[in-house]
Amino acid sequence: MVILPKPNCTDGELNEITTLLETLGYSVHISKGVERTVIGAVGAPDADKAAAIQRLEALPQVDRVVPVLKPYKLVSRDFQPNNTVVRVGSVCFGDGSLSIMAGPCTVETPEQLLSTARAVKDAGAHVLRGGAYKPSTSPYGFQGLGEEGLRLLSEAREETGMPVITEVMDPRDVELVSAHADILQIGARSMTNFSLLKEVGAARRPVMLKRGMSSTIEEWLHAAEYLATHGNTEILLCERGIRTFETATRNTFDVNAIPVVQSLSHLPVVADPSHGTGRRALVAPVARAAVAAGADSVMVEVHPDPSSALKDGAQALTFADFRRLVPELRAVAAALGRPMAISD
Amino acid sequence: MVILPKPNCTDGELNEITTLLETLGYSVHISKGVERTVIGAVGAPDADKAAAIQRLEALPQVDRVVPVLKPYKLVSRDFQPNNTVVRVGSVCFGDGSLSIMAGPCTVETPEQLLSTARAVKDAGAHVLRGGAYKPSTSPYGFQGLGEEGLRLLSEAREETGMPVITEVMDPRDVELVSAHADILQIGARSMTNFSLLKEVGAARRPVMLKRGMSSTIEEWLHAAEYLATHGNTEILLCERGIRTFETATRNTFDVNAIPVVQSLSHLPVVADPSHGTGRRALVAPVARAAVAAGADSVMVEVHPDPSSALKDGAQALTFADFRRLVPELRAVAAALGRPMAISD
Amino acid sequence: MVILPKPNCTDGELNEITTLLETLGYSVHISKGVERTVIGAVGAPDADKAAAIQRLEALPQVDRVVPVLKPYKLVSRDFQPNNTVVRVGSVCFGDGSLSIMAGPCTVETPEQLLSTARAVKDAGAHVLRGGAYKPSTSPYGFQGLGEEGLRLLSEAREETGMPVITEVMDPRDVELVSAHADILQIGARSMTNFSLLKEVGAARRPVMLKRGMSSTIEEWLHAAEYLATHGNTEILLCERGIRTFETATRNTFDVNAIPVVQSLSHLPVVADPSHGTGRRALVAPVARAAVAAGADSVMVEVHPDPSSALKDGAQALTFADFRRLVPELRAVAAALGRPMAISD
Amino acid sequence: MVILPKPNCTDGELNEITTLLETLGYSVHISKGVERTVIGAVGAPDADKAAAIQRLEALPQVDRVVPVLKPYKLVSRDFQPNNTVVRVGSVCFGDGSLSIMAGPCTVETPEQLLSTARAVKDAGAHVLRGGAYKPSTSPYGFQGLGEEGLRLLSEAREETGMPVITEVMDPRDVELVSAHADILQIGARSMTNFSLLKEVGAARRPVMLKRGMSSTIEEWLHAAEYLATHGNTEILLCERGIRTFETATRNTFDVNAIPVVQSLSHLPVVADPSHGTGRRALVAPVARAAVAAGADSVMVEVHPDPSSALKDGAQALTFADFRRLVPELRAVAAALGRPMAISD
Repeated sequence: MVILPKPNCTDGELNEITTLLETLGYSVHISKGVERTVIGAVGAPDADKAAAIQRLEALPQVDRVVPVLKPYKLVSRDFQPNNTVVRVGSVCFGDGSLSIMAGPCTVETPEQLLSTARAVKDAGAHVLRGGAYKPSTSPYGFQGLGEEGLRLLSEAREETGMPVITEVMDPRDVELVSAHADILQIGARSMTNFSLLKEVGAARRPVMLKRGMSSTIEEWLHAAEYLATHGNTEILLCERGIRTFETATRNTFDVNAIPVVQSLSHLPVVADPSHGTGRRALVAPVARAAVAAGADSVMVEVHPDPSSALKDGAQALTFADFRRLVPELRAVAAALGRPMAISD
Repeated sequence: MVILPKPNCTDGELNEITTLLETLGYSVHISKGVERTVIGAVGAPDADKAAAIQRLEALPQVDRVVPVLKPYKLVSRDFQPNNTVVRVGSVCFGDGSLSIMAGPCTVETPEQLLSTARAVKDAGAHVLRGGAYKPSTSPYGFQGLGEEGLRLLSEAREETGMPVITEVMDPRDVELVSAHADILQIGARSMTNFSLLKEVGAARRPVMLKRGMSSTIEEWLHAAEYLATHGNTEILLCERGIRTFETATRNTFDVNAIPVVQSLSHLPVVADPSHGTGRRALVAPVARAAVAAGADSVMVEVHPDPSSALKDGAQALTFADFRRLVPELRAVAAALGRPMAISD
Repeated sequence: MVILPKPNCTDGELNEITTLLETLGYSVHISKGVERTVIGAVGAPDADKAAAIQRLEALPQVDRVVPVLKPYKLVSRDFQPNNTVVRVGSVCFGDGSLSIMAGPCTVETPEQLLSTARAVKDAGAHVLRGGAYKPSTSPYGFQGLGEEGLRLLSEAREETGMPVITEVMDPRDVELVSAHADILQIGARSMTNFSLLKEVGAARRPVMLKRGMSSTIEEWLHAAEYLATHGNTEILLCERGIRTFETATRNTFDVNAIPVVQSLSHLPVVADPSHGTGRRALVAPVARAAVAAGADSVMVEVHPDPSSALKDGAQALTFADFRRLVPELRAVAAALGRPMAISD
Repeated sequence: MVILPKPNCTDGELNEITTLLETLGYSVHISKGVERTVIGAVGAPDADKAAAIQRLEALPQVDRVVPVLKPYKLVSRDFQPNNTVVRVGSVCFGDGSLSIMAGPCTVETPEQLLSTARAVKDAGAHVLRGGAYKPSTSPYGFQGLGEEGLRLLSEAREETGMPVITEVMDPRDVELVSAHADILQIGARSMTNFSLLKEVGAARRPVMLKRGMSSTIEEWLHAAEYLATHGNTEILLCERGIRTFETATRNTFDVNAIPVVQSLSHLPVVADPSHGTGRRALVAPVARAAVAAGADSVMVEVHPDPSSALKDGAQALTFADFRRLVPELRAVAAALGRPMAISD
């Protein structure tokens, strides 16, 4: 790391810094310029770095500490140069193909789920999404069907052959949800729920980790590192929009994040234009954009009748909308030399 | 609520809107202007409103839905005009007095905790803070002493007589933490952990709810409403800074939020200038500002030797810093006619 | 508009509101619900609305004022349903074709500009960009060659036949810049420079208006309305990234804004992925995304030797980068049924 | 500065970096760690740094460049350790005293301005504010009385003896506005209007520079450096709220910025809680907070009848509000040992 002392730092204060660095196991190089001094410190093992940085920052004579190494490791492309490929049935994420995940925001009834599952499969979707446990900002909002919803998802998989992705919100539910889901979803509101990350990290199921609505890309990769250090490396990273000052859309879909994450990490990237925009009319153009930017997969919300949806109908595509979208995504992918993923 | 149809909405489409509203139990008033039509809807019971708004927003001919009533109730000043006063031992929050909570970010050792507890009590603190379970962005960071940390906090309370506040991060730990803490803290990263909110809502302990780092004030009050609907109305709301584009400070302390929350809610407001700034030198001026803006309580981090702290030493006050701060806060409060809270 | 009085508003206070509304020329409809009252006001002429809203908001008994009509008019799709097509030589913006604008951030030398102009033209660019007046955050930074840079741009146009776009920063320079440029650019830092907007509005030159780095889409359209009310309706709107908390990129390219603006306005939309990302490696994927989202044109920075560039070399494409990018953009456009624009 | 090459940087690529550094006049120190290499570069003169950083960032093998020195100089406390004291008549800014600037948002009529001037002077204000040229987001909004407004301000000064502050928006108006104003105001929307900064920098009048609504503190100090390098060092820095995701207030008043700026710069700091909150009821608590945080001066908007104001009535204090506020600010200042400024 690099330590920048304050401009008026005395020799005695400089010594305090180097003494602390040496105590922490670093070797120290000092460069004295005309106006400022720069301290380089190299050599200490990984696990101590975050604490070391905090201790150095706490010294009053230190202006800034600049870390040199990335703070995450297992999920980093420096550590593993080749793409991770996550396989769920015959669908591959990260092998260059484009896959589509679709389904209702929330599992409401057997008919609603099954009709949607059939419609999205017929139109070309690879994975069925649907929420059984729903995070709700308001305690008065619909919180999902819970275990009953999970059972309906299992039935829809049996009926259609599509793998199923659904959210888990509570560390106590990981085992139950794993019994029904092919991919566990960690929602944006749970990205910093470290207890949940640890439990899902210990599960033997691929996991899709949504970016928190105000999380930096670095924090998102830290959260993925939690999963990896607890044993789960089958991780999909899902960009779903970040919170900004703009109020014309529900969130600001951070399309930059797709190539940034692909350069920093070997993990596949999923785009969620439904939450990324919050408005039906914007889902198709932003889904196309995500594919053009290189997303490995796109997840969209579809409902048989959005105006009767219990949640987020404003961003749900109709069946007809979805049937129009799939060939557009296929065409954009093909233009860039990418095939569609293979369904079962 | 008020519904604004799109400009070119036909009479048939208007009828669909009013039919849906009537189905949902609303009575409907239509005002046709020269350029636009406005639909007013009144009368449906509380619990259906969020879902109703979402269903209306999902209609393609609807441009916007404007809620009229606030989406939270129990925590709202419309519902309860008088301040809630939360009592913890002899310390009162919300009665006009100013209280101070202080202690280390993290419980590290018996000596570190006890020496800090004694120092802050002597200087005028009312409540001892200290983390036993620590949210850590990185899986390699220090995660706290856990149960051992709780025991040390209990011992510090016995020794000094100060009530104790500490964070609970996992719904499975609520019972254990409640056995040791006088106030349960819900951290910023947990504000949308709805499973945790429900468990803490069912606990019989006052709770301090930190604002999420990208939560609007409305979402923060929604989270408080979760606690209240599950039975716990002894809630302190803690402003601890929000995430903005500014990088000179760790967070941007939202001083506006103090009077805004006091106008919208009857709950006491705590300010956390340590996290709100992230830098020792800024803690005192921002703590004074929070008191001048009307905060009921101030919480600050104090450490015997910040450069040896395992976490967040850069924002920890030394004992000497804290001894200088307390009389400043007392003077600002007195200037505005407010006494200090009473210690045991 | 809709006025929401405070919950405890008395009849006398309601009367004050309706009296003010009637004085301002509105007819008033009152809906009294069980818990809240809603006032609808229709009929006053356009120009008074903003002031009327401000006067109503200033009444202490008013909780909120909700405007119903959009605050801009000439640039709105409600006012003009069909796309505006801006023609610059044989290049059309807004007719469904995709055009590409390319060139150096800053005009540095005759050789640098001419070699870049030839290279981008050969590779398929339609318009040459280059800055003669450069906004520089620091007074010590390079501020451009000024009039000499304009002359070099004119020479490059003569030599290559490509129309030229360049920024004007000062209302006193509009005439001079108009003598050399085919399209006037208003930069992000100037979007709220209302004196400049008025002068450029009075110029007889197409104009590209960049979105301010923290401007909402509504504010951006307000700025375009300034141009239109002063007589200039040949406006291109350029999304160039907004400021958010994310620091991995220079800005966050707001891909949502492309379809949002196209739904709200009839004006063509240009994407600037160079400023939208700030990093060379991200320019191509985000440029492709912008085309897939429906942008009418893409503007990118290209330099013969980025590491010798006087400004923004980190986001400049090399000639080879640009030659790889053009066929990708052409392929994405073709996949969505869109041809390239026609060059002279 | 410190240069961090990419992890896989070859020796040949390292050489390219050091060659460029040496060409630019730097001496170079290389520290090779086990995993990463760090390059320190010291010694080149001030004016080349920004360009040097940009050129280094443009090298593909460079991961990051970390500047060591602050990019501004004349306004920095490193350059001038003692506070600048700006004198306007008998009012001093920066000498430890607290001053108050008050008046209407906009000059509307002689009566409106004079009655307000008298009222705020009687209540204890030191400087009269009032806008003659008004930035208006919408072209249909009120743009101020212009020169007539300036004349009314001059008359109000003669009548009351109070110095006058008013905004200048256009570089062509600097001379005229300087003939009437004691302090020139540069508004938030003009902070990056570099032509204006240069003209005002050349004027012989104290200037108050408002922070741009999405400007970092560093960018704000850069803008002040423009004024200083053009000759004007009588600069007041005005925090007026920044743009964030929070919509409950017009802006988020960044109270942290007050002590941050005071540590980085020797210039006095003014707080504008009227724009910082946008709501009358929040102005007093946030004004008190600003004083408690150490602001040298507070500027507030006052109107004889806010609901008839042509602009921003919602944030205007009434005369009675202002009379209540002044003693509160005086009491907070006194509690911290600070006197009020001296009026003429």
